[in-house]
Amino acid sequence: MPVPHGLPASKLIHCGLMTAQATDMTLQVRAFVQSEILPLEAIFLKHGFKAVLPELHKVRQKVRAQGWWLPPLHPPLGMGLSLTEFARLSEELGRSPLGHYAFNTQAPDIGNMEVLLKHGTPEQKERFLKPLAAGEIRSSFGMTEPEYPGSNPVWMNTTAVLEGDHWVLNGHKWYTTGFEGSAFCIVMCITDPDQPNPYARASQIIVPIDTPGFQHVRKISVMGEQGEDWMSHSEIRLHNVQVPKENLLGERGRGFAIAQERLGPGRIHHCMRWIGIAQRSFELMCKHAARRELAPGKPLGSRQAIQHMIADSKAEIHAARLMVLDAAEKVQQQGAEGARVEISVIKYFVAGVLQRVLDRAIQVHGGLGMSDDLPLSFFYRHERAARIYDGADEVHKTVVARAALKEYGLEVSL
Amino acid sequence: MPVPHGLPASKLIHCGLMTAQATDMTLQVRAFVQSEILPLEAIFLKHGFKAVLPELHKVRQKVRAQGWWLPPLHPPLGMGLSLTEFARLSEELGRSPLGHYAFNTQAPDIGNMEVLLKHGTPEQKERFLKPLAAGEIRSSFGMTEPEYPGSNPVWMNTTAVLEGDHWVLNGHKWYTTGFEGSAFCIVMCITDPDQPNPYARASQIIVPIDTPGFQHVRKISVMGEQGEDWMSHSEIRLHNVQVPKENLLGERGRGFAIAQERLGPGRIHHCMRWIGIAQRSFELMCKHAARRELAPGKPLGSRQAIQHMIADSKAEIHAARLMVLDAAEKVQQQGAEGARVEISVIKYFVAGVLQRVLDRAIQVHGGLGMSDDLPLSFFYRHERAARIYDGADEVHKTVVARAALKEYGLEVSL
Amino acid sequence: MPVPHGLPASKLIHCGLMTAQATDMTLQVRAFVQSEILPLEAIFLKHGFKAVLPELHKVRQKVRAQGWWLPPLHPPLGMGLSLTEFARLSEELGRSPLGHYAFNTQAPDIGNMEVLLKHGTPEQKERFLKPLAAGEIRSSFGMTEPEYPGSNPVWMNTTAVLEGDHWVLNGHKWYTTGFEGSAFCIVMCITDPDQPNPYARASQIIVPIDTPGFQHVRKISVMGEQGEDWMSHSEIRLHNVQVPKENLLGERGRGFAIAQERLGPGRIHHCMRWIGIAQRSFELMCKHAARRELAPGKPLGSRQAIQHMIADSKAEIHAARLMVLDAAEKVQQQGAEGARVEISVIKYFVAGVLQRVLDRAIQVHGGLGMSDDLPLSFFYRHERAARIYDGADEVHKTVVARAALKEYGLEVSL
Amino acid sequence: MPVPHGLPASKLIHCGLMTAQATDMTLQVRAFVQSEILPLEAIFLKHGFKAVLPELHKVRQKVRAQGWWLPPLHPPLGMGLSLTEFARLSEELGRSPLGHYAFNTQAPDIGNMEVLLKHGTPEQKERFLKPLAAGEIRSSFGMTEPEYPGSNPVWMNTTAVLEGDHWVLNGHKWYTTGFEGSAFCIVMCITDPDQPNPYARASQIIVPIDTPGFQHVRKISVMGEQGEDWMSHSEIRLHNVQVPKENLLGERGRGFAIAQERLGPGRIHHCMRWIGIAQRSFELMCKHAARRELAPGKPLGSRQAIQHMIADSKAEIHAARLMVLDAAEKVQQQGAEGARVEISVIKYFVAGVLQRVLDRAIQVHGGLGMSDDLPLSFFYRHERAARIYDGADEVHKTVVARAALKEYGLEVSL
Repeated sequence: MPVPHGLPASKLIHCGLMTAQATDMTLQVRAFVQSEILPLEAIFLKHGFKAVLPELHKVRQKVRAQGWWLPPLHPPLGMGLSLTEFARLSEELGRSPLGHYAFNTQAPDIGNMEVLLKHGTPEQKERFLKPLAAGEIRSSFGMTEPEYPGSNPVWMNTTAVLEGDHWVLNGHKWYTTGFEGSAFCIVMCITDPDQPNPYARASQIIVPIDTPGFQHVRKISVMGEQGEDWMSHSEIRLHNVQVPKENLLGERGRGFAIAQERLGPGRIHHCMRWIGIAQRSFELMCKHAARRELAPGKPLGSRQAIQHMIADSKAEIHAARLMVLDAAEKVQQQGAEGARVEISVIKYFVAGVLQRVLDRAIQVHGGLGMSDDLPLSFFYRHERAARIYDGADEVHKTVVARAALKEYGLEVSL
Repeated sequence: MPVPHGLPASKLIHCGLMTAQATDMTLQVRAFVQSEILPLEAIFLKHGFKAVLPELHKVRQKVRAQGWWLPPLHPPLGMGLSLTEFARLSEELGRSPLGHYAFNTQAPDIGNMEVLLKHGTPEQKERFLKPLAAGEIRSSFGMTEPEYPGSNPVWMNTTAVLEGDHWVLNGHKWYTTGFEGSAFCIVMCITDPDQPNPYARASQIIVPIDTPGFQHVRKISVMGEQGEDWMSHSEIRLHNVQVPKENLLGERGRGFAIAQERLGPGRIHHCMRWIGIAQRSFELMCKHAARRELAPGKPLGSRQAIQHMIADSKAEIHAARLMVLDAAEKVQQQGAEGARVEISVIKYFVAGVLQRVLDRAIQVHGGLGMSDDLPLSFFYRHERAARIYDGADEVHKTVVARAALKEYGLEVSL
Repeated sequence: MPVPHGLPASKLIHCGLMTAQATDMTLQVRAFVQSEILPLEAIFLKHGFKAVLPELHKVRQKVRAQGWWLPPLHPPLGMGLSLTEFARLSEELGRSPLGHYAFNTQAPDIGNMEVLLKHGTPEQKERFLKPLAAGEIRSSFGMTEPEYPGSNPVWMNTTAVLEGDHWVLNGHKWYTTGFEGSAFCIVMCITDPDQPNPYARASQIIVPIDTPGFQHVRKISVMGEQGEDWMSHSEIRLHNVQVPKENLLGERGRGFAIAQERLGPGRIHHCMRWIGIAQRSFELMCKHAARRELAPGKPLGSRQAIQHMIADSKAEIHAARLMVLDAAEKVQQQGAEGARVEISVIKYFVAGVLQRVLDRAIQVHGGLGMSDDLPLSFFYRHERAARIYDGADEVHKTVVARAALKEYGLEVSL
Repeated sequence: MPVPHGLPASKLIHCGLMTAQATDMTLQVRAFVQSEILPLEAIFLKHGFKAVLPELHKVRQKVRAQGWWLPPLHPPLGMGLSLTEFARLSEELGRSPLGHYAFNTQAPDIGNMEVLLKHGTPEQKERFLKPLAAGEIRSSFGMTEPEYPGSNPVWMNTTAVLEGDHWVLNGHKWYTTGFEGSAFCIVMCITDPDQPNPYARASQIIVPIDTPGFQHVRKISVMGEQGEDWMSHSEIRLHNVQVPKENLLGERGRGFAIAQERLGPGRIHHCMRWIGIAQRSFELMCKHAARRELAPGKPLGSRQAIQHMIADSKAEIHAARLMVLDAAEKVQQQGAEGARVEISVIKYFVAGVLQRVLDRAIQVHGGLGMSDDLPLSFFYRHERAARIYDGADEVHKTVVARAALKEYGLEVSL
C-alpha cells in the first residue's frame, strides 16, 4: 500500500530503534487509520460510541483482511508482533480514539487477554479468551474502589470467600472501564485476608456480568460524559455474587503479582497510544497554524509564540517516543521487573508531554479547539486521566527516586 | 446573617484593599452562595441548566429580598457597588457556575446592560435594558466569526447596510453565548467599510432574535456538551435581517470603541469570577487532602507533593486576587484606558493561575476529580477557554510588552 | 528633588497600597540610587567591594544629608518609617547590590540592630547598637552550621556553657555573612541542652570578633567569588571562646524565639530587595530589547518570544510587589506571628519570580548578559541563594500547606 | 580496567542505541575520569586553570597510553570513533570541566581540527593541524562580534581585503574562547561584501596570534570570573592585520558554509557534554539526598519534594541522552544537513534539561550547592550560556517550527 497523499515519509521522525520493515508496516497502518478510521470520528463525537459501532465492525473486517488483527497476540489469535514492534504500531492506532478498538487491542480487553493467555486454564481460554480474541465479546476489569486510593493497591475491601465449590464475592468498585456491554469482568478481591504479606492477600476471579447480585450502579459521568458501551466507566457492586471456584484466574493469592505483570506492558501501550494522540494533535496544530490567517497574508504560523509551541511539542514528542521504544526494548530483554524504573519514568514523562501538547494544540486553535468539531477536546478531557490512572505521577516519581537513592544506600519507603 | 459554620473568617485572606464593610457583605454573600446555590449544582451537573432554572429563579427572589440584586448597576436597577466592591463580590459568586446568574450579573447580559445604560437611547433603555435588568429576559452578543480570528477584531465579514429606515444585516457568527432563549442579540457589524481607519468601520445593532432571516445554525458542542439556554454557545447566520434604524446602539462607526469600553470592566469581572473558581477548587483540594487516607492513619495531606500543590495554589490565588483588586481600583481612578496594561496583565496571569489550580485540584482528587460528582471537571473543561476568549494570552502579552518597550522608545506593531 | 530624566512616573506601577507621600519619597530615592549609587557598580563589579568602600562612604554622607539614614529605625537612630513604608523603599535600594549598604540597612546589620533595640540591655545598646546604627562598625550573625541542615533550626552543635561570670562557647558555623571586617558576631548556641522543649534550648550571645579562640577558617568561595568584607561569607570556629555573661542577648533560652522575631520583617526586607533586583533587571531587559537590532531596522523587541518574556516578567513582578506590601501591612496590624502564612508565601513566591526574571533578562541580553559588564550576572549568581536562605522553598511551602490543612482538621508535622 | 568501586553498571542507563563494545569503553573512561580527572577539580576551582595545567598534561600522557587520544579524529591523529560512539564517550568526558581537555577534544580546538582536516591545504595541515592534534598548541575561533547579534550570522563588520599577496583584516570580536595562550585564531570575516547572496560574503582566515595589529583588548569577566588560558573568553580587535593569502581556510566566500558544517557535529558534542554535567550533578544530588540528615535518622531523600526533583531529573536526562544519540546516528546516516531539525531540537531541549537539573542539584545541596566546594556552582554559572551560544533557544525553536510548518505549505522567514 503506497503512502497516501499528504503523509510524507519525513513525518516518521528518524528513530534508530526502528527496523525498515516495521517502518513499512507503520506507514501502511497510518494510511489505513487515516482513510478508514478518522472519517468515523465525527459520528462518534456527535452521536456517541454506539452510533459508530456498526461502522467500526466493518473496519474490523478490513483489519482482518489486511492480516493485522490483534497484533501483539501470537498466531493464530493475532500477528505475534514483539512488544517493540507493537509499541510503534500502537502510536499509529492511538491517533484516533477508535484506532485500538478497530484492531481489538483496546484496554482493558488486551490486558485481560494477556492475563488469560498466561494464567488461564484451558477451559478459561476456551470460554473467555477465544471469543475475546475473536472480537465476539468484550470484558472488563474491576480493580479500583471508590473508598480506597488507587495509589495503595493492597488496601481494598472487595472480598471473595470460598464456600464449597463457589467463590462468594462482596464489594464495591468504580471506574470499571467498558463494564456496560461486557460479557465478564475480572474482579480483584481479597481472598486471603490473614496472609501476613499484604501483597499475597488478593486473587483475580472471573465473574460473568449476568451473575445474580452483580449490580450496575451507574455509568460514572466523567468529564461531562457518561459515555456508552466500551467507552464508559461504571460503578458496580457485588452482593453475594457466586461463581464456580474454577473461575479463579491464576493462583490464589497471586492477584497483585498478576496485576503487576499486566501493568508493565500495559503502560508501554498506554504511553505509545498517548504519543499517537500527541502526534496527531501536533499535526493538527501545525496545519491550523499554516492555514489560519490573522490578517490577510499573515498566517498564524508566522507568530513566534505559535512557532515555539510547535517547537516545544516537537521536541517533547520526539523525546517521549524514543523513551518508550527504549523501555519496550528493555522489557523485551529483561522483563517488566527489570525495566521497572524505565516504565515508571515513561508513565509520568509521557503523560506530562501529552497534556502539554494537547493544551498547546487547543490554544493554537482558539475557539475551534474548544469545540467538538475536532477531536482535541475529547483528548484534552479524557486524557487528563493519564496522569492519574495506572499509578499517579506522584507514585511513579517516588518509585524512580527510590531506585536512584538505593544506589547510594538509602532505602525509602513508598 | 452570621457566618455559617465551617467558614472561618481566616479564609478571607488578608487584603489591604478591602474595607471592613465590603468584607462583611462578602462574608454574607459567601454564606448565601454556600447555603442556597451550591446545593443546586448537582441538579445542573446531572440534568443540565434548564432543569435547574426553576430553582434558580427562586434563588433570584431571595437575592432581591436581601437587597443584593444586580450589584454593579446603579439604583433603582441594582445596588450601585463600585467596581472594586463588586470585584470582590464577584469572586464569591464565581465559586459556583450558577452564582452570577442568581444575581443577574452573568455575561454577556451584564455587559449588554452596561452598554445600553451608557449608549442606549431612552427608547432602547425602556425596551431592552429595563426587562434585562429586571431579569425578565436574556440577551446575547454576536461578535466572533468562525472564519476570522478573535485576535484581530477589525477583520470581520458581517455587514449592515442602511436601506431607507432599516438596517439590513448579513453575516455569520459563532460562540454567541446564551443565544438560545435570549430575546435579542447585539450584533457587531461593518457599517462603514470605506472608512480609512479600520477601527471606525463597525457599529453595534440590536437585533431581536425572532427577526426573519436570523438563523440559529446550531448550539456548538463545546468540551463535550452542547449546553442549554444561557449555558450554551451558538453558531448563527444573518440572511438579509432587517431591523429599524433606531436599533443602532450608540453612534455609527463606534462599534469597536464601545466594545472596548465593555471589555475593560468585563475582564475585571471575569478575573474575579475565575478567582472564585480557583478559591473554591483550592478549598475542595485541601478538604480532600485532609480527609482522604492513603493508608489507615496516613492522610493524603501528609504527602509533601500534595502540600506543595496546596502551597503553590495558595500563593498564586493570593497574587491573582491582589492584582485584580488593584486593577479594579485603577480602572475606577483612571478609567479602563488608563488601566489598559493592568487589565491585560490580569487577563493572562489570572487565567493561568486558574488553569494550574484546577489541574492540581483534579490531580489531588484522582478519579473523583475526573468525575462530574464534583464541579471540578466542569470548571476544568469550560474554563480552558479563559486563556482564549476576550483576547488570547498571546495577544494580551504583546499589549503589555508593547507598553513596556514604548517607554524605551520602541514602537512595536501588534 | 525632581524626578530625573528618563524615569517617568508611569514606571511606579499603580499600587493601591501606597500613599502619595510614600510615592514621592520613593521617586526621590530612586533618582538618588540612579545618580549616586549605580555609577559605583562598575568599580565594585571589577575591583571588588573594598575598592568601592571609600566612594560608598561618601554616598552615606549624602544619605544622611538628605535625612534618609536608616529609614526603618526610630529617631534619633533613623527615620522611623513603618514596615510598609520601608518595604517600598527597600525595593528602590535593592536595585543595586550597594543600595542597602548606602542607607545602613544591609543584612545582617539591620536585623542585629532590631534585635539589640528590642532585647539589648542599656549597656549593650550603648556599646553595640549605637556605633552600628551610626555606621561606624559592622556586625555579623552566626547561625548556620555546616554539619546541620538549615531547615531544622533546633538541630545545632554550637554550645555555650556558663562558667562563673563567663560564657564559654565552642562550635562551628558557616555562611556567617560579613564576618570579615565585623566588630562583633551574634552567635546562636545551645545553652540549655536539657530543656524538654527543643525550641527553648538556645540563646544568642554577642561575641566580639577579636575574642581569643574565635577562628576565621576561611571566606567561603560562593558562586565563583570569595568576596570581601561585608560582601563575603565566612566559615568560623569557636574554641573555648570566653565572653562576659553580660553578653547574653535577651533572655536565656529565648534564642530561637528572638531569631524568629527578626525573620518575619527580615523576609519582608529580602523580598522587597529582590523585587528591586527584578524590577531593575526588567528595565535592563526592556531597554536592550528596544535598542539592540537583529538586523538593520529590526529590533530585538519586535520578536514575540522576547515580548512574552517581558510580559511574563511584568506580571510576576507586579504580583510580587502587591503581595509583599500586603504582607507588610498585615505584619504591622497583626505582628509577624499573625502574618506567618503570608510571610512564608512571599518568601517562595518572590524568590521564584526573581530567579525567572533574572533568567529572562540574561537570555534577552545573550552574551552580554553572561558578562560582568552588567550587574545581571552578579544577581543571577548570588541570588540563586534566595530560594535557600532564611528557609528553603520546600520548608515554607510546607508551612503554608500545614496552615491550609489545619482549617480542615488535619495536623501535619513539618 | 575493571569498573571502579561505587560505579555499578546499572548507572549506565539502558540505551538501545549502544553496542556492547562501546559500553565497555564507556565504563572504562568513566572510571578513568573518576580516578584521574575528578581529583584535579579542587585545584582548578580554587586556584584557576593555569594552576591545574601541569597535572592535566600528565593526565594527557595517560590518555595517550590508554590509546584514547583524540577519539573522534581518524588515525594516526586520533582513534577514529564514529560520531555516535564519540557522542556517548563525550558524556563521560563532560562529567568534569577538565575531561575534554584531557582527551584534546575541547572546543574550539576540536572544531578547528575538523575544519582544517576537511578544508585545509597540505601546508595548513602540516603547520596548524598537526601540532593542534598533537596537543602542542591551542587555537581559537573568532566569530561573534559585540555590536552584532549572534542570531544573525551574516550581519558582521570584520572585513578582510586582499591586497597583493596578503589579506588585510580589520574588525572587532568578543567571546573568542581560549584566545589567551592560543597559537592562532581562525577569523570569520567579510571578504566579498558585494555578493548578492549574504551567505556567500564571508571567508575564514587563519591568523597567528602574534601577527602585528592583533590586539587583545581584555579577557571578558564572565559570571564572576575572567578565567585563564583555555578557560577564558576574550575581546579582540584587528587593526590592519596582515596575513599571507595562503592563510585562507577553504574556499573564498564559503565561510558561512564551513561554519555551518562544524556546528552540526559541534552541537552533538556540546549536548553530550551537557548530559555528562547533568548526569554527574544528578549523582551528586542523589548522594547528598541519601546521606544528609534533616534530623537524626531522617535523611533528606525521605522528603517527597526531593524525590520528585530526582525523578524529574532522571526522566529528563534519559530523554536527552536518547535524543542526542538518535541525532548523532542520523547525522552519520544523512549528514548534518539531513539532521538539521534533530540538531536544533537537541540544542534547546538538552540545554533546558541541563539548566533544570543543575538548579535542582543546587537546591538539594542548599548552602553547600552555592559554594565552590562542589563543581555545581561552576556548572550552574558557566553553562547558563548553553541556552545562548551556538544559536539561542529562540533561534533553534524557530528553525524547528519552520520545518514543521513547511510540511503544510507555509514558508516562514527566520
